[in-house]
Amino acid sequence: MKPVIAITMGDPRGVGPEVIVKALAPDSLYPICSPLVLGDPHILQRTAQFLGLGLKVAEVQEESLPGLPPGTLPVLPLSRLSRGSSPAEIPVEESSRASFAYVEKAGRMILAGQVEAIVTAPVSKEAISRLGIPFRGHTEFFAELSGTRDFVMMLAGDRLRVALVTTHLPLNQVSGFLTEEKILSVIEITGRGLKEYWGFRSPRIAVTAFNPHAGEGGLFGKEEKIISRAVDLARERGWGASGPWPADSLFPRAVQGGYDAVVCMYHDQGLIPLKLLHFDTAVNVTLGLPFIRTSVDHGVAYDIAGQGTASPRSMEEAIKLAAQMAVQKRQAPNFKT
Amino acid sequence: MKPVIAITMGDPRGVGPEVIVKALAPDSLYPICSPLVLGDPHILQRTAQFLGLGLKVAEVQEESLPGLPPGTLPVLPLSRLSRGSSPAEIPVEESSRASFAYVEKAGRMILAGQVEAIVTAPVSKEAISRLGIPFRGHTEFFAELSGTRDFVMMLAGDRLRVALVTTHLPLNQVSGFLTEEKILSVIEITGRGLKEYWGFRSPRIAVTAFNPHAGEGGLFGKEEKIISRAVDLARERGWGASGPWPADSLFPRAVQGGYDAVVCMYHDQGLIPLKLLHFDTAVNVTLGLPFIRTSVDHGVAYDIAGQGTASPRSMEEAIKLAAQMAVQKRQAPNFKT
Repeated sequence: MKPVIAITMGDPRGVGPEVIVKALAPDSLYPICSPLVLGDPHILQRTAQFLGLGLKVAEVQEESLPGLPPGTLPVLPLSRLSRGSSPAEIPVEESSRASFAYVEKAGRMILAGQVEAIVTAPVSKEAISRLGIPFRGHTEFFAELSGTRDFVMMLAGDRLRVALVTTHLPLNQVSGFLTEEKILSVIEITGRGLKEYWGFRSPRIAVTAFNPHAGEGGLFGKEEKIISRAVDLARERGWGASGPWPADSLFPRAVQGGYDAVVCMYHDQGLIPLKLLHFDTAVNVTLGLPFIRTSVDHGVAYDIAGQGTASPRSMEEAIKLAAQMAVQKRQAPNFKT
Repeated sequence: MKPVIAITMGDPRGVGPEVIVKALAPDSLYPICSPLVLGDPHILQRTAQFLGLGLKVAEVQEESLPGLPPGTLPVLPLSRLSRGSSPAEIPVEESSRASFAYVEKAGRMILAGQVEAIVTAPVSKEAISRLGIPFRGHTEFFAELSGTRDFVMMLAGDRLRVALVTTHLPLNQVSGFLTEEKILSVIEITGRGLKEYWGFRSPRIAVTAFNPHAGEGGLFGKEEKIISRAVDLARERGWGASGPWPADSLFPRAVQGGYDAVVCMYHDQGLIPLKLLHFDTAVNVTLGLPFIRTSVDHGVAYDIAGQGTASPRSMEEAIKLAAQMAVQKRQAPNFKT
């Protein structure tokens, strides 16, 4: 039984439909999963035609899942936006409302056990919020829906996985958010994710320092003391954590296989090495949710939507990783620390 | 006429002697430069013997420069520390005093025009300071000696060059040091260096943002406004500068050849991508001095000194780059903006 993966189509005005049909037109992903797109069948079919792809979109009904027809892209129709028009011509309101409906449906389906993983294409937080829907992003939506307080943003590639202690904060405010509890929580959620979804029995987790040269013994900052205590606590709880390591010399060692993931203190600290190694193949994974959720590592990209130039690489990898995580989760459902 | 390059031996108790004899035992660097080691002939000879290298050390006198004998390593004898002993057995005081003497001599020789570039092996700032010598590091020493106020630390590899606006500061203090004047100065010194020493007629200089997503239009921090004004000023002065760019997506483009150098706001922002691409081949270059100075990208490494395991790659690259810079400088002595 291949895992059924719900793929939300993203904002119809963005590159979501394009990267989905490009990723799923070839046969390569079907052997490892049964994809189910939550979206707009007309827009997907039109996009495939525009791109000259021989992909046939098939509307499916919820009741008939998972009996999905082979050789076609199964789509659960959740909107019927005007056909024939280019992305930019779709009315903003309808487009945004539909993009939220796909996400909401995905959340309800995975909680009901109808799908095993969610892969999301990009939406516009701002556009959805403007409709009066309190939406702070996919991750926050899924966390709230599932009653999850602590979650972690991980960016994963073949050669490097980074988990972020802080994400979209002014760099100057990061230090104030670095507490023992927060760092320990990120180490533990990352560790549990590596066990449950990647199958590492004793994950090796490196934790970065915040300051250059790891603060050189307190000479360049004090944050390393907090990080060090969090690492000690994690070790006491049985995690294979180490650090704080000077970030610049840590990543080459991590990439050479020394660590299964690197816990980073701030956005660019993790994203700089990740994007350098995995420019368009990195996958955004939310750890800590009671289900599997991956995402592309790019935004709606309105500026290039409808031009046929968007790279489907991140979407391909997001689907592939979600499928691998689902299979691994079945094999090792009850790993404990 | 090959450029004569003064190579300071570094702390005799550290890995300096080892990386120098390893770098200069093969023939490969002699076609591009005439190396002259400022150091201790006995220690160098003993190190070569210990490593089983067929390198012959030849003492030379200042008057006889640059008539250097071929097939041997010319050393200007500046100390005569006890022979036969391992690095750790050399008395700390003598070793530190000697390491400073090599650096001082290199400074005087290059100001007198006796050599065309300086390459430095690592010393211990702390050990030299403890002798009562006010020494804050090679760079500061050479800057003071030459009356240089503004200088820039660049780390250079084949695929990436980064220039740092701030270096060894607590990350929390970086923001306070980011002024238009400082950033503009780093852009200009970097630009002049790229012209004079690398021969780029119109260097393309990318400038990083400080915050994630370049602050997302002011949402995650304000430092980008200062950086943006500095870039504008640089452009008004004719420099091919651009930015502030989100750092995570910038480096892949820089590496693909989009930029000749990246000006970075803080240490790890530049060093993380640099070390990921150039783990042991990066060279430290001081720009803004009235002469050429490169350095290895590692410290004294007392813990592995005398074991034969130190990598000479950074020293090889530091000598090679100094030689290339010297040749380029002769060809284009008067590039103007």
